[in-house]
Amino acid sequence: MRPSGRDLSEMRAVSIDTDVTKHAEGSCLIKIGDTHVLCTASLEERVPPFIKGSGLGWVTAEYGMLPRSTSSRMRREAAAGKQGGRTVEIQRLIGRSLRAGVDRVALGERQITVDCDVLQADGGTRCAAITGGWVALRLAVNKLMKAGDVLSDPLLSPVAAVSCGIYAGQPVLDLDYPEDSAAGVDGNFVMRGDGRLIEVQMSAEGAAFSREELDTLMGLADLGVQNLVAVQKAAVA
Amino acid sequence: MRPSGRDLSEMRAVSIDTDVTKHAEGSCLIKIGDTHVLCTASLEERVPPFIKGSGLGWVTAEYGMLPRSTSSRMRREAAAGKQGGRTVEIQRLIGRSLRAGVDRVALGERQITVDCDVLQADGGTRCAAITGGWVALRLAVNKLMKAGDVLSDPLLSPVAAVSCGIYAGQPVLDLDYPEDSAAGVDGNFVMRGDGRLIEVQMSAEGAAFSREELDTLMGLADLGVQNLVAVQKAAVA
Amino acid sequence: MRPSGRDLSEMRAVSIDTDVTKHAEGSCLIKIGDTHVLCTASLEERVPPFIKGSGLGWVTAEYGMLPRSTSSRMRREAAAGKQGGRTVEIQRLIGRSLRAGVDRVALGERQITVDCDVLQADGGTRCAAITGGWVALRLAVNKLMKAGDVLSDPLLSPVAAVSCGIYAGQPVLDLDYPEDSAAGVDGNFVMRGDGRLIEVQMSAEGAAFSREELDTLMGLADLGVQNLVAVQKAAVA
Amino acid sequence: MRPSGRDLSEMRAVSIDTDVTKHAEGSCLIKIGDTHVLCTASLEERVPPFIKGSGLGWVTAEYGMLPRSTSSRMRREAAAGKQGGRTVEIQRLIGRSLRAGVDRVALGERQITVDCDVLQADGGTRCAAITGGWVALRLAVNKLMKAGDVLSDPLLSPVAAVSCGIYAGQPVLDLDYPEDSAAGVDGNFVMRGDGRLIEVQMSAEGAAFSREELDTLMGLADLGVQNLVAVQKAAVA
Amino acid sequence: MRPSGRDLSEMRAVSIDTDVTKHAEGSCLIKIGDTHVLCTASLEERVPPFIKGSGLGWVTAEYGMLPRSTSSRMRREAAAGKQGGRTVEIQRLIGRSLRAGVDRVALGERQITVDCDVLQADGGTRCAAITGGWVALRLAVNKLMKAGDVLSDPLLSPVAAVSCGIYAGQPVLDLDYPEDSAAGVDGNFVMRGDGRLIEVQMSAEGAAFSREELDTLMGLADLGVQNLVAVQKAAVA
Amino acid sequence: MRPSGRDLSEMRAVSIDTDVTKHAEGSCLIKIGDTHVLCTASLEERVPPFIKGSGLGWVTAEYGMLPRSTSSRMRREAAAGKQGGRTVEIQRLIGRSLRAGVDRVALGERQITVDCDVLQADGGTRCAAITGGWVALRLAVNKLMKAGDVLSDPLLSPVAAVSCGIYAGQPVLDLDYPEDSAAGVDGNFVMRGDGRLIEVQMSAEGAAFSREELDTLMGLADLGVQNLVAVQKAAVA
Repeated sequence: MRPSGRDLSEMRAVSIDTDVTKHAEGSCLIKIGDTHVLCTASLEERVPPFIKGSGLGWVTAEYGMLPRSTSSRMRREAAAGKQGGRTVEIQRLIGRSLRAGVDRVALGERQITVDCDVLQADGGTRCAAITGGWVALRLAVNKLMKAGDVLSDPLLSPVAAVSCGIYAGQPVLDLDYPEDSAAGVDGNFVMRGDGRLIEVQMSAEGAAFSREELDTLMGLADLGVQNLVAVQKAAVA
Repeated sequence: MRPSGRDLSEMRAVSIDTDVTKHAEGSCLIKIGDTHVLCTASLEERVPPFIKGSGLGWVTAEYGMLPRSTSSRMRREAAAGKQGGRTVEIQRLIGRSLRAGVDRVALGERQITVDCDVLQADGGTRCAAITGGWVALRLAVNKLMKAGDVLSDPLLSPVAAVSCGIYAGQPVLDLDYPEDSAAGVDGNFVMRGDGRLIEVQMSAEGAAFSREELDTLMGLADLGVQNLVAVQKAAVA
Repeated sequence: MRPSGRDLSEMRAVSIDTDVTKHAEGSCLIKIGDTHVLCTASLEERVPPFIKGSGLGWVTAEYGMLPRSTSSRMRREAAAGKQGGRTVEIQRLIGRSLRAGVDRVALGERQITVDCDVLQADGGTRCAAITGGWVALRLAVNKLMKAGDVLSDPLLSPVAAVSCGIYAGQPVLDLDYPEDSAAGVDGNFVMRGDGRLIEVQMSAEGAAFSREELDTLMGLADLGVQNLVAVQKAAVA
Repeated sequence: MRPSGRDLSEMRAVSIDTDVTKHAEGSCLIKIGDTHVLCTASLEERVPPFIKGSGLGWVTAEYGMLPRSTSSRMRREAAAGKQGGRTVEIQRLIGRSLRAGVDRVALGERQITVDCDVLQADGGTRCAAITGGWVALRLAVNKLMKAGDVLSDPLLSPVAAVSCGIYAGQPVLDLDYPEDSAAGVDGNFVMRGDGRLIEVQMSAEGAAFSREELDTLMGLADLGVQNLVAVQKAAVA
Repeated sequence: MRPSGRDLSEMRAVSIDTDVTKHAEGSCLIKIGDTHVLCTASLEERVPPFIKGSGLGWVTAEYGMLPRSTSSRMRREAAAGKQGGRTVEIQRLIGRSLRAGVDRVALGERQITVDCDVLQADGGTRCAAITGGWVALRLAVNKLMKAGDVLSDPLLSPVAAVSCGIYAGQPVLDLDYPEDSAAGVDGNFVMRGDGRLIEVQMSAEGAAFSREELDTLMGLADLGVQNLVAVQKAAVA
Repeated sequence: MRPSGRDLSEMRAVSIDTDVTKHAEGSCLIKIGDTHVLCTASLEERVPPFIKGSGLGWVTAEYGMLPRSTSSRMRREAAAGKQGGRTVEIQRLIGRSLRAGVDRVALGERQITVDCDVLQADGGTRCAAITGGWVALRLAVNKLMKAGDVLSDPLLSPVAAVSCGIYAGQPVLDLDYPEDSAAGVDGNFVMRGDGRLIEVQMSAEGAAFSREELDTLMGLADLGVQNLVAVQKAAVA
């Protein structure tokens, strides 16, 4: 029934290659099916003005799509002179999600910027960005710890995200682009490794959903995130 | 326990005054406690390029805060030269939420822009904007129907929104600013008049939540939206 | 002869409600006929770089129109990415006018920003903004004086403004929108409470005027400003 | 008493060289003392969208200052990414002033853009721009008439402008920069060749003025404009 | 003597992987040592306004660096709100260079946009972008020819580019970042497959060079480009 | 054979008038045929952040064209809200070229900004800007030396630039606009007074060139620059 022939609760193949760029403190290339996102974590020994002197660290994220990561070429945001609303919304979500797994006292007064750049898109780029972004963050923090710059681990838990939705009347896990563009209800679940929720975003376009349906989707998401967390752990091991 | 002395499931006082500006096709001033939002609906007999010729209508929204709607003055976005990420995120949510209650075929190839401008802020401005925005939209559509420009009602259902969160360890309904800035978990529920969900956005900052907690919050939201829909109905009667 | 049936030297009804927002140090809603402007005065204990350390205070103003304050919806300036030329021109006028009534030594090294946001427009918004802006400023300064932060009153005189023009060959006071858009000659007079002039801006579009006509208009303006100053005084009493 | 030693009603030396650039349909370099403005008039056989099909013509103006036209270098507006408020205000004034002397029916559906670029500034640049701008416009219109593209002269009258102010307690004509920066009251008078007024802009900074003072300044302006119109006529003869 | 231990006329290892993204009509990942650039060619059946109706085709290019492609993180240009001067300069060079190898009549009225995004930078990114960009272009044009949309081959010759410079007093081929930042004289040579020149850009910073030195560098460039063209041909075979 | 009737190696008439504006520390108006560029050098006792405290000076340049310096009016860059790619490319070239002739230690920690504004364009504006810019720089540095602010001359050599190209199959010196727009190969040579090269930029549009042709053009450039340096020396004598 799904365009890809997958089962309702079947994710696409997931792989995470680490240390893919020589400059970044942490980096990975995450592939979730045909969605490929390059994630880097950059460490700076300075923080934004609003927390200067607080002793707290900061984790933030930026997101971009290469112009031809999509089926027809998009305008380059740097050429357009601004980031679009969707980009801004996504990068705020990534930053909030990653921060929810960080002990900012333990991190100390420094900033880690996670850049998530989509090389190829086929649905679910923001979830891939969060999942891969956490791996890049983990690797960068490992360097800090190995150098003795932080003493206790500032990462409380893995953070991963997956999309779910109602496609052709059925609840499905991990929507690809054909499903995403046809689904009346879909959203993203960001969770910690222990299954607790960090962010739920579910929305209907030209439709509505019940509390029961949300519950079913959350069950699927739980499965998906467990899978992703296992891949994350293997990647950073 | 709540700073305002309200019960956990008690909303602030809600009022909606309609037809508050002489130019807009529909308008209202919604007050939810000390949060005051002026909502106008503007009708145009043209649609955005991407649906030209499709016969479908479009509903979109814009959101702004007056510089001194807040406790300390914010920079005017027009002077800053761009809308901030939060503004963009909110106005996309309002637009999506209102469209979820619209039959775009019945509306016909025309556009209604709902402007939500916050005159005074005390938490929950985006929920007030959705709830008041729907009233403005309803009044504008009434004019279209009275003029015979649309034949069947394009509004499928009222749309209203309320915030919930976990404040000081307790699930609470309709957070005001002091609660909102202290809550570790909070979010917004957008629903139709029949209780079905249109959008759920729940996020944790420096915390996480369980599926059971989400369920409890959804119950509170249900109560709140029923209340708001009753006020909406009285306002447009 | 006037569309509204008013006499040549008759102003529209004027009202000023004070303390209309809970956050601003001073605020009012001024209504001049169907022109409604929300004015707030925000106090900050810092000044712009160019007077830092001078001991002098600063008063500045910003102006905006809600998108549907006008008969057809205007583009939101924040979305357009810049303030239009008319907006810039008006807010510079408001700032200059208000400063002309301020003793900047007595104010001390602090800044008051007066925001004038047009909720509904029907001609004469800049004059209403100046007149209402002065009331908001007066109320904010009162707070400073009551708190003992300034010792002698920095406000030298009330400042108010009114428009005049030649409509259908006749000199008229306080043009509404139908008159404003048809008048070949019109302008604004900003005056102090004692009748001395602060700013005169009179311009002709597709026409010209004589010194005698300017003199007649100035006589009308004198009447109008006396009226406005009386309303200001009552409002802040 | 004046820094330059001039009498109260004495203008600076005025010269206008015409046809100073080979590309523009009309051009001149106007020098008013040490204020030098290059004015060009560019003809285009198209009009702005808002008058398309109306049969009416349009005259508009743009204004700029070279970065080092002033005593200390100003930031280049193109590099800053926008025109400042003062620039916008001035170019709107120039455009309005020139249009006030144009019969837009006689001009026909075409546009003339007058660019006024300040090569060297010493006070009064906007008045020089209007006065020189009219000469450039006159020369461009002459070409149109010679070519038979317009049949009756669209220029109703010369348009010229001069500044006046109260400097050291005395009314003075044509302020140079040292006077301009010290004057508490100053402004600009734009007039037609027959002495009728097109625009009056008089403003006080930290001061106020009486109707009598305005009258005296207007008398000075009258003298100044007669002088300028004579130079304009000689230049285009 | 070179930091990398290479001989003066020795290039870094070069590889070109083709068809690396599923959406673009042509694509490759070019690696020149540690400089990695992802190049895509996007075909559109429309041309820029200035050649509409001319029957001629257009090839253009855009260039970007991922924020952490460099040793310390650069600001994302989309977030900064504009492309920097260096970016603009480079993408104009890439576009000009590629067009020099295109028969625009044979291409027909369509546009190909070549996007060159630097994933990892170690000197010579613009040369890698031109060399890889030509491969992406070749692959996209092959599709057009296979589909019968163009009849004769619009690509006249391969186009490739290499940098040369004077490092530590010696002429060297293909500078990496440590050499590039220390060289007093360096530049880029863009050539066709037959050795004829398309673009020469040689510049000195705090130094100067003789015609003899330029001649020596050109000899090195000749070698380098022959090498690159061989790799290009193998990649597209 | 050349549109102007000039010999292949014949430059246009060159003149440089110095001290043309009263405010700038150094200034000139350079005319190369019908190309007229106003160059000013502005001295500031501060440097950009990246060299603060280094003891080194900085020379930078900005470039602009008046809107009607060209045959049809160009959009004003300040109104467009940004400098175009061509402008950015040119002003970076001017800055680099001038710095190549400066001993930044001898200059000391101060900045000189050279503004090059094209009053009238007929090809070769960037070369005129470099040649005239150096004269303005020389005059400003002379003032510094006369005042004893710098002890040894920071200007190592004159810097001048000329364009060459292949027009109608023939190598020509100093292209005017008709030649420039028709030439398949053209470029700019920036040299010091001793004939050593600072920058070579040669590019082909729809063509290619051989090393022999480049050599011939360089010979022409050599002649041209010798001529320009003689005029520079006379102007600053």
